[in-house]
Amino acid sequence: IPQFSEGYRLRPIELADYKRGALDVLKNLTTVGDISREEFSELVKMWQRNPEIYHTYVIMNPLDKVVAIGSIIIEAKLIHHCGKVGHIEDIAVNSSEQGKRLGLSLIRYLLALGRKNGCYKVILDCDPANEGFYLKCGLSRAGYEMEYRF
Amino acid sequence: IPQFSEGYRLRPIELADYKRGALDVLKNLTTVGDISREEFSELVKMWQRNPEIYHTYVIMNPLDKVVAIGSIIIEAKLIHHCGKVGHIEDIAVNSSEQGKRLGLSLIRYLLALGRKNGCYKVILDCDPANEGFYLKCGLSRAGYEMEYRF
Ligand SMILES: CC(=O)N[C@@H]1[C@@H](O)[C@H](O)[C@@H](COP(=O)(O)O)O[C@@H]1O
Ligand SMILES: CC(=O)N[C@@H]1[C@@H](O)[C@H](O)[C@@H](COP(=O)(O)O)O[C@@H]1O
Repeated sequence: IPQFSEGYRLRPIELADYKRGALDVLKNLTTVGDISREEFSELVKMWQRNPEIYHTYVIMNPLDKVVAIGSIIIEAKLIHHCGKVGHIEDIAVNSSEQGKRLGLSLIRYLLALGRKNGCYKVILDCDPANEGFYLKCGLSRAGYEMEYRF
Repeated sequence: IPQFSEGYRLRPIELADYKRGALDVLKNLTTVGDISREEFSELVKMWQRNPEIYHTYVIMNPLDKVVAIGSIIIEAKLIHHCGKVGHIEDIAVNSSEQGKRLGLSLIRYLLALGRKNGCYKVILDCDPANEGFYLKCGLSRAGYEMEYRF
């Protein structure tokens, strides 16, 4: 577990994080929409039923509010001798908590989790504006992300 | 099912594709390694046990050899109102079968599968050298792929 500012801690997401601000933190990243407590619980339970694939972590502040969130999805492939790739997804840090290196700690933790789970690499996609942050986390540019939106 | 050259067909991967050249096709993409029949079966069965997440398709030629392969992994997220994102992965076409638009048909099929499974977008990462192909498939550039290799 990485070092944090005093009173902050990182742990797997829980059902009760619905009322601890987990969705508000994600609004720093993109559209979240109006998710009910039931929808939140159903998704988090599905993640928990698939612990080989989904891993979502939160950082809690001393007031027990979610101030950062991020996931790693472990994909099992044929290539690289039935290798695994970790996909870091949906990283968000509360804008009021910048400067505490919470994002860096979270990424380092997810990278270590990828290694522990046998990944030969961990990848993520980001806006060019965020490349600097991920370079500081030790990642390198690898290629282009292409998308098709429905 | 998309249109192909006569005698070619697309279908989900099967255990018996081990001896029909599935791994040889992947060697057109990257390192595959020396995968045993048991390792292949174990992975394909794990994919089949997780049909909400893993979808791997092959294109067979008239001689019943695998000549193209590709996957879409469906990730269930919180963002976009518990939205889903499809990740297209490990696309490979036999170099001897170029010019038959097999790659294009495969990508179109995987995009349609993403839509059918409720994805709000489908993404993939590629080498800048392959951007032109994916633009022809209707995708657009979205961001940078960043990686950390162990
Ligand atoms: C490293 C990281 O957090 N990358 C995120 C990705 O995980 C997220 O799914 C996407 C949402 O963007 P969208 O709302 O435009 O689909 O944004 C960024 O690419
Ligand atoms: C669209 C597509 O097929 N992209 C592939 C990706 O799916 C694959 O996992 C990777 C392997 O590269 P590596 O052997 O360097 O990890 O190559 C390409 O980025």
